[in-house]
Parts: sequence; structure tokens; C-alpha cells
Amino acid sequence: MIDTERFIQDLQELRQIGAYKGGVHRPTYGADDMQSRRWLMDRMRECGLEPSIDGIGNVLGKHPGPGRKLLVGSHIESQNQAGWLDGALGVMAGVALARAGLPVDVVACADEEGHFMSFPGSKSLLGILTEEEIDAARNRYTGQPLREALAAAGLAGVPRPALDAARYKGFFELHIEQGTQLEGAGLRAAVVTGIVAIWQWRIEIVGMQDHAGGTTMAERRDAGLTAVRLLAAIDAEFPRHVGERTTWTCGRIALDPGAASIIPGRAEVLFQFRDIEVATLERLEGVLRRLIPESNRRERCHATLHAMSLSKPALCDHVMQECLAASAEANAPGLWRHMASGAGHDAQYMARIMPAAMLFTPSIGGISHHWAEDTKIEDLELGVRILHDAAAQFLNR
Amino acid sequence: MIDTERFIQDLQELRQIGAYKGGVHRPTYGADDMQSRRWLMDRMRECGLEPSIDGIGNVLGKHPGPGRKLLVGSHIESQNQAGWLDGALGVMAGVALARAGLPVDVVACADEEGHFMSFPGSKSLLGILTEEEIDAARNRYTGQPLREALAAAGLAGVPRPALDAARYKGFFELHIEQGTQLEGAGLRAAVVTGIVAIWQWRIEIVGMQDHAGGTTMAERRDAGLTAVRLLAAIDAEFPRHVGERTTWTCGRIALDPGAASIIPGRAEVLFQFRDIEVATLERLEGVLRRLIPESNRRERCHATLHAMSLSKPALCDHVMQECLAASAEANAPGLWRHMASGAGHDAQYMARIMPAAMLFTPSIGGISHHWAEDTKIEDLELGVRILHDAAAQFLNR
Repeated sequence: MIDTERFIQDLQELRQIGAYKGGVHRPTYGADDMQSRRWLMDRMRECGLEPSIDGIGNVLGKHPGPGRKLLVGSHIESQNQAGWLDGALGVMAGVALARAGLPVDVVACADEEGHFMSFPGSKSLLGILTEEEIDAARNRYTGQPLREALAAAGLAGVPRPALDAARYKGFFELHIEQGTQLEGAGLRAAVVTGIVAIWQWRIEIVGMQDHAGGTTMAERRDAGLTAVRLLAAIDAEFPRHVGERTTWTCGRIALDPGAASIIPGRAEVLFQFRDIEVATLERLEGVLRRLIPESNRRERCHATLHAMSLSKPALCDHVMQECLAASAEANAPGLWRHMASGAGHDAQYMARIMPAAMLFTPSIGGISHHWAEDTKIEDLELGVRILHDAAAQFLNR
Repeated sequence: MIDTERFIQDLQELRQIGAYKGGVHRPTYGADDMQSRRWLMDRMRECGLEPSIDGIGNVLGKHPGPGRKLLVGSHIESQNQAGWLDGALGVMAGVALARAGLPVDVVACADEEGHFMSFPGSKSLLGILTEEEIDAARNRYTGQPLREALAAAGLAGVPRPALDAARYKGFFELHIEQGTQLEGAGLRAAVVTGIVAIWQWRIEIVGMQDHAGGTTMAERRDAGLTAVRLLAAIDAEFPRHVGERTTWTCGRIALDPGAASIIPGRAEVLFQFRDIEVATLERLEGVLRRLIPESNRRERCHATLHAMSLSKPALCDHVMQECLAASAEANAPGLWRHMASGAGHDAQYMARIMPAAMLFTPSIGGISHHWAEDTKIEDLELGVRILHDAAAQFLNR
């Protein structure tokens, strides 16, 4: 049986490390983050796992017994001044399953939150993170080189072994929803069908920087205006082509030089869309690749489309989903649903080398990446119980 | 007679101080700027003026003779890495007129380029610049307090007398056009009818910062999207209401936090329009004050309009314009026009206390606020000749 009380107690204890208002501030490789990793290794030892930390900061607690295992986990660092459950929930769920006697290894993948780069921990466990990528990475907020941060954390020169995929039957990750779909429908859990792909683009628009008074409307080549018109065209056109759960977001519009009285000479737009279906992603890329030249035929400023990253959707394993669904229905009849994950998770990398699946618990008000992020205790308890029963069932299939 | 050769020679000598590529880098109160002010005082002395510098850096060369004078000038500091003529042209034209024997005072108004604040030199000469404003001002690029910069320039505690308006018959300013209207029409000079007013607004839009994957399109409140839709509405609506020479510009769109995968929770837009007619400015304010609540009725994010500064148009004196027009026609028959100034100039402040007028010379390619700014030597010579003859004529009216 799963000890949900102890599970909540562990989460509350972890919440004290780097506490910030109601949440935590544990950026990757900082003192609090490293303390949380050592604290996790102590918890792993308590429940009989053999913990180690690798050269990128991944903490892996290995079950000492024979036979194939489940891998269960998530990440333990936080976004800046963010929530106590994002990541920590999935790692401590792994510890709870180990404590309940299931043959699981528990993993905390380093820097899922991307303080230095995109998923370095998961990538290293897959053997696809190069030393050159580590050399090049810097903290996106402070500019600190990743090498320097690793050295300060005592991780310089520590080996980074890849996972032995053959050891595992599959990977389970429990995570908060980071949205309001569950709460809005009065549901308490979601079996994740897959993790959407993110196709991230940079649109660069070149005009002519000029004086906002001296240059007539007929003469000017305003890169900001072209950006506005192009984004308005995307806003009008995209809803005709998207899928049911597609999202599309412009997170940044930077006008250069960005002064009140200067006509912007350049504009940079960050635009992304997410979907679980490659066909939908390709259709939307087609829309974008049509709208840009349309803009260039119409406007005085030239826009260029640059693909920044085009990830693959990660589909969750069907058998693992069946086990999660059966367990959800048994533990909370009628109070769960299937759902795609709009956010990226370590599970999307694990899915490349073993069957993987995820379970979501509700987020109060959908708040995420903010210290006010929270989930009801009874939903956390339900989540780890569903996960435990599903994992036990899956181990028997 | 005006010595145009000496005039060009002076300008070329001044160009050496703080030379940067083909232009100059003389930010206000920097070492090069102060050197240029001392150099100017030497030139003033050479042609019989009595120079002084005041506590905000204004250099005023007073004619020692009796009777009413003309005030002629502009500014001498430059934008960062900018042109050799912007400002300097008008100041050295004043020196050339004094050298030619006209009863003129010459002025270089401090910081017209606004490194620290908007027109502090002109305002001080009008007696409307307060000590509190000086206390509060900081360099907009470096953050240096204005008080500190003044002390470093040796200007701490130096008096700041206001101009004696009764001493002057009027103010003339020669300036580059900073646009391409003259060049485009093959013209060589423009008699300025007035200086447009700038009505500068800040539009603040409040949405909800959220995860770009976890938050569905139906749930999200994207402040950036509301900004785009509002700016697109302005773009569609404004041309129906503007005047012949109105300009309108969005120089900045700042999305907060401005990251690829975060739905912007706030947006800040800087939007301005300029016109010489108050009726047009008021009509456009009306359009803006209609579009904002329209947006608020339609969108999920609330927009608020803040007026940052609403300046008054400065109309040029009719008699002075007549003198400039007659002189232009005599010196360059058919090769000049009337034109409103889209940019702000010291003349707009002088116009508050005395008749004021401006003459524009062409800008090659319309380039301004950039080291590549330039004007043909023959156009500079023509400009100072037109100004000289007009000033002589105006003194006799």
C-alpha cells in the first residue's frame, strides 16, 4: 500500500529548501538546488535505493533487486520564484512508489526548467548531450557559463553515464496539469495521451530606422508596423487551420531601437505553435510559409522566417495509458479524462528509448511557473495512488 | 556680404571635435561636447560677440552694440554617433551672420537632443526649467544623474539667467530637413511654416501571464495579442482621420516577460502622432479614445491609455516667413517650398517668447541621427546665404 501521508510530508519537507513565499526558488545548480539533490539522495537511501549524481546533476536512485524495473521521476529544480510541485511532485511520487515496495528506479532529471539549456539532464541520460553543447551553454538569466556552474556545484569531471534502456519496462511521470481544463470540468486526474511538439520560429523584419517626425508616412519603412500586420494576419488565418488543442503564441515582439520617436528599423518576433499531430504542425507551417511571402509582396519591409526548433510530438505508450486509465477509474470513478500535454516534460525524451506515460493532477487556477502554483492535498494523494496502482498493474502485464 | 567659405571651414573644424566615422559623437556634457562649447565661445569672440555659458550649458554670444537684435542658433551637442550638421549648422550660421556684421546674438541651446531630458537648454532660457527637474533627470542611456554630469562639466552653481525677450526682434534657426521631401522634389531649401506638436501616448494592456503550452486558446488572456489587434485597428482607422502631413508611429511594443513559451501577461505600447493643426491632433485623440474602449469591449485583456506628453504646435512668424521666402526665391528661384517640420526644434520654445522662424536645407537620402547624415556643400552655402539675406531684410521691417 502507498503511504500518501508520508508522500505529502516529503513534499512539504522539500518545499522548505529554497522556500519563496508559498513556492520555491531553486534555480539549477544553485546552493538550494544542490541541497535538494542531496536531500533527495538521503530519501532514496531511506527506501532502499542506491543513489548517485552524474556530471550534469541528474540524481538516479537504483533499485538493488533483480529483474526489470520501472523508471519513475521528473525534475527537482524550479523556475525562478516558482511553484513547490512542478517537478518535485513526480520525483517524490517515484520515492513513494519505491517506499511502497515496487521495483522502481527514481530519477530527477537536471534542468528540465531550462535555466541553461533545453532538457540537458534527459538528453544526457539518453547519451545525446555533447560536451560541446555543455561548453556553449550559459545561464539564460545571469549569463554564467554552464561549465562554471557545474564546477561550483562540485560536478566538474563527474561521469555522465547513459541509461540502460533494457533495464526498464517503462517510465512514469506524475506532474501538475499547468492549466485549468481539469479544474474547469471538476475532474481530478488526467491520463496524458502525449506531449505536444513545439515548432518555434523567429521572424525577422528589416525596414529603415528613421525619425518619427521627419519621415512622412509615404516614405517610411516601419518594421514594427509590418510585424503588427503580419501578426494580425496570423491571428485571422490560424484558427481556420488548427487542430482541436493546438496553441499558438507570440511571446516576444522586439522593435529596434524601441524608442518613442524613432521608426523601428528592425523587428524580431518569436512565434510558436504546438500540437500532438505532425500533420497539423505541417499544415500550420504551410500557413506560415504562405503568410510571410504574402506580407513581403504587400509590405515595404522584408520578413524572413527562421525555424528555431521543431520538436517531435511524444506519444504515450498505450498499455501504460490503459493501466493509468483503469487505476484512475477505480480510484476516482468518472472524475478523470484523457488529455494531451501542452507543455514539454522529461517523459518526451524517455519516450524515445522506452515506453513512457504521464498522469496529471489539477492545478488550482491553472497557475504555473509562479510561486502561487498549488494543488489540493487530496488531489496529490489521489494522483500518487492512481500512479501506484497503475504501476503495479503495468509491472504484471 | 556673407563669407560662405569661412562658414563651411568653421563647420569642418567643429566636425573634428568628437569625430566619429563621417559624423560626430558629442553627447551632452561629455568631454567633446564641452570642448565644442569652448571652441564655439572662441569663434564668438573672434567675430566680436561676448560669450558666456550658463548653468545648464547654454552658450550665448551677445552682440555688444545698441538696439534690438536677432537671436540665431540651434544646438551643438549630437545624438550618439550621429551627424555633423544636426544642430551645429544652425549655431555656425548664427556665427556667420554675426561675422557678416548683422546685429545678432548667437545661441547654442543645451541638450536639444535629449540625452538627459526634453529641451532643458531652451526651457532654461525661457525661465521654465526648475531645479527639481534638474535634480530628477538622468542620462537616458547611462543613468548618470544630470547634476553629476553638470558638476563634471564644471557647471555646478553657475547661474541660469532667462533670456530678455524684449532684446530680440526674432529667432532664426537653420537646420537640416531630416527627411527626403526636398531631395525627392529636386528642391534646395524649405521655409518652415511651423513645428508639429507631438502627442505621445503609452498604452498599457493587462492580461494573464501563463504557460504557452498548458493554457488553451480559449482560456488564455494574451496581452500581446490584444496589443497587436489594437495596433492593427489603429493602422486601419487612422488614415481616414489624419491630415495631409500627419505622422503616427508605434516605436515600442514591450511584452512581459517576453519569452518564447510564456503568454505575455502585460504589454506596453508607445504610440505617438504629430501634426501642426490642433484640430487634427484632437480628432486623432478622439479616434484613439474610441478605439481603446472598443478593444476593451471585444478583448479579454484590458487596455488603458496614458497621455505622456501633449505638446503644442509652434507656428512660425508670418513676417519672418515672408522674408525667408523672398530671400529663397531671390537666391534659388523656384527651388524652394514651404514645409512643416515633423521634428521638434529649439525654435518651438523660442516661439513662445518672440517671433521665430526656421529654414531647412536638404538631407542627402533623408538620413538623420546617424553618422552618415550629410548635406551638399552648395546647399549649405545656399542655406546660410538665404538666412543672411532674410535676416537683413527682417531687421529693416
